[in-house]
Amino acid sequence: MISQVIEGSYFTARDCDQVDFNQDALICIDSEGIISRIVNHDDPKFGEVRRQAEAQNILTRLSDSQYILPGLIDLHVHAPQWAQAGLALDRPLNEWLNTYTFPLEAKFSDVNFARRVYSQLIMELLANGTTTVMFFGTIFNESNLLLAKQCAQLGLRGYIGKVAMDNPDQTPEYYRDLSAKQALLNTEEFIFAIQELQSKVGGTLVPVITPRFVPSCTDDLLAGLGRLAHKYDLPIQSHCSESDWEHGYAMARFKMTDAQVLDHFGLLTERSVMAHTTMLDHDDVDLFKARGTAIAHCPISNAFFGNAVLPTKRILKNGNKVGLGTDISGGYSPSLYRNMQQAVMASQMLEDGVDQTIVADHRGVTDSRISIKNAFYLATLGGAKALHLNAGAIKVGCKADMQVINKRTSLIETQADDIFEQLIYQTERSDIKQVFIGGTLVYQN
Amino acid sequence: MISQVIEGSYFTARDCDQVDFNQDALICIDSEGIISRIVNHDDPKFGEVRRQAEAQNILTRLSDSQYILPGLIDLHVHAPQWAQAGLALDRPLNEWLNTYTFPLEAKFSDVNFARRVYSQLIMELLANGTTTVMFFGTIFNESNLLLAKQCAQLGLRGYIGKVAMDNPDQTPEYYRDLSAKQALLNTEEFIFAIQELQSKVGGTLVPVITPRFVPSCTDDLLAGLGRLAHKYDLPIQSHCSESDWEHGYAMARFKMTDAQVLDHFGLLTERSVMAHTTMLDHDDVDLFKARGTAIAHCPISNAFFGNAVLPTKRILKNGNKVGLGTDISGGYSPSLYRNMQQAVMASQMLEDGVDQTIVADHRGVTDSRISIKNAFYLATLGGAKALHLNAGAIKVGCKADMQVINKRTSLIETQADDIFEQLIYQTERSDIKQVFIGGTLVYQN
Ligand SMILES: [Zn+2]
Ligand SMILES: [Zn+2]
Repeated sequence: MISQVIEGSYFTARDCDQVDFNQDALICIDSEGIISRIVNHDDPKFGEVRRQAEAQNILTRLSDSQYILPGLIDLHVHAPQWAQAGLALDRPLNEWLNTYTFPLEAKFSDVNFARRVYSQLIMELLANGTTTVMFFGTIFNESNLLLAKQCAQLGLRGYIGKVAMDNPDQTPEYYRDLSAKQALLNTEEFIFAIQELQSKVGGTLVPVITPRFVPSCTDDLLAGLGRLAHKYDLPIQSHCSESDWEHGYAMARFKMTDAQVLDHFGLLTERSVMAHTTMLDHDDVDLFKARGTAIAHCPISNAFFGNAVLPTKRILKNGNKVGLGTDISGGYSPSLYRNMQQAVMASQMLEDGVDQTIVADHRGVTDSRISIKNAFYLATLGGAKALHLNAGAIKVGCKADMQVINKRTSLIETQADDIFEQLIYQTERSDIKQVFIGGTLVYQN
Repeated sequence: MISQVIEGSYFTARDCDQVDFNQDALICIDSEGIISRIVNHDDPKFGEVRRQAEAQNILTRLSDSQYILPGLIDLHVHAPQWAQAGLALDRPLNEWLNTYTFPLEAKFSDVNFARRVYSQLIMELLANGTTTVMFFGTIFNESNLLLAKQCAQLGLRGYIGKVAMDNPDQTPEYYRDLSAKQALLNTEEFIFAIQELQSKVGGTLVPVITPRFVPSCTDDLLAGLGRLAHKYDLPIQSHCSESDWEHGYAMARFKMTDAQVLDHFGLLTERSVMAHTTMLDHDDVDLFKARGTAIAHCPISNAFFGNAVLPTKRILKNGNKVGLGTDISGGYSPSLYRNMQQAVMASQMLEDGVDQTIVADHRGVTDSRISIKNAFYLATLGGAKALHLNAGAIKVGCKADMQVINKRTSLIETQADDIFEQLIYQTERSDIKQVFIGGTLVYQN
């Protein structure tokens, strides 16, 4: 049963390398919010379907300067850190955590504070064309549940984790789970609460097993979280080999790489999403592939904290699952457009190298550059695959998660590929006019 | 004679490292558009000056969520290339020039086409908080003059160059000055036309000697342009050692570095601004310093075409003059905010290195990271110094070039430094509410 028809032109990733353009098509959305039919402009049925939709008053026609893209999928956001986005980006990771981030997150014991931050954050993400987000919450379930409720209320698809962190050596006393046991109990309680909430509201709310990262957790906690993920068949999110420091920490404590540690505790599964991973070695990358674990590439954040560029092209060619994340607030921008742009620039900088005193032949890493189409794939289909979510594309059977963008009139003759490139490089928050999630208009500008 | 008083809080660079904050001050602007007095909030005269301004109906009071910054100074824009901003960024520099850029610039023989592109571009620059721009035009004087007129009309301070390029080996037949002699005649004609226009209109319109870059010019043209710059005491702009290709070209043709070639032809002066310079060697940097020549650092463009990161910190510490440029359309963004952000990120990537397979100690270049305050300096005072323009600061005696920014309410307690950092990292075009140039409101959003 078609309940809505949108007439317009859209771009959608077919795979990592190819982007399809469909001009002036009819996108038919059913009452479940799924794209149930797409009628191309040259289809003999086009006129009839259009007339019917018009007669039923369910047709929305975009203007010629508007384009539809799939809603973007952000695989890595620390929801509480929105309050400090754009701050303290000149500190190394561990100092940034202890001086800024932990004190801030501790404030989320106050649910009223959480309400202000989370509602502003969700509106900001929607305004930037993001329709699905994988969130780190805090250790506080009341705030975490509030985040979930606000996602449901505002329409955002939310994958949400109660952060688990109990290691007294690496977490401050004022912001730490009391024990591994308590962290596991609270995680389980959170899982039930989300599942109950999901049964009452529509949309997508999924609890996520969330060890903050290896350094923050005792062995007991890591092992227990692995068991919980398995028991309830849930997604897992964490950080992995984000920096030299994190990489070295795992080697020192376990004599294993960070990836091996996570795997040892059952935390690398086909539902896992690991952020950053700039320091994965070749074996780690293969381990990720074997387990079906996805990478959340966070190029803006990595410029500040990653200590190197994720070799995205090499990892994609290896067949690994990769999506994109803003990593608020390691990344200062809530926009995945900015992160698509940075993903391309960082990859070019890896290819060319950065140190002008080295001769060109030895400066960079050959065949590292990704295209803007690759980056678009990461922000849409790549993210959807990481989450096993039927979204990220304008395609029959997919959730109708879409954004409508106003494009400045081209000053020169352009092909579809040119229009696409300009959309990704030049779209600003203010150019995003409408955002639909599951066919519902959740944001209008 | 005070003709306008703005009451509000502002940030301004004191020098490369320090940013001053002044809360709720009165900025008094005279009828010439110069900041003639600043009354601090705790000054005993504050109340009186404020009352007088109110009585004369010349007081504008900003809201508590608004901040004033100096207008930004963009040292490197190719005006015609606005029409292709965000396109073809996956090509090497010389291919990008021949396949995209030269054919586009050739269209500016059509002054009607030029009118559409230039008016849209100037509005876009103003909307992004930019108040002074150094422009490359095209080889066509009619279009170049139109660009100048539009700057005057819309209020933007414009340093504008007729592009000179006559080398048959490196320029296409359809877009090339007929001869060195003709290029010099046209340049001189352009100088007179701008000087005449400037005498009729207000604001700032300055003709700039503009050899496209060494490869595009014959020896005769380079020598002649050097003489013209000297004869009329004019600024000079060009590109210098932007890429390995450009660097190698100069070595092959002249057995000198690109910088030495420019110097040889009298094109490195204290009024010169050279774009990119990613491949300058240490001697070149010293030569730039000795000549007082400024660098237009274009970090977004450099990520695509620069083949390395400009060692900005080393060059600043050396005492060289450096400002910031968007390099439209080698850079896809018209925003100097984006370029400030990228300047910091690129410098951090130079410091950390990019290739994760190299051990941390050997991966990057120690002491390369610049701060966001450094980047702000580049986009304001640094640019003003490069142009010998009394602007780029909120300071008595400076031109009243300013922007008013709406800042989202902070969710946590913040110091002035935090507010500053968030302003630079998070300001979007739509947050820029007003732009004043010489005290005149030229843009309102
Ligand atoms: Zn993170
Ligand atoms: Zn340029």
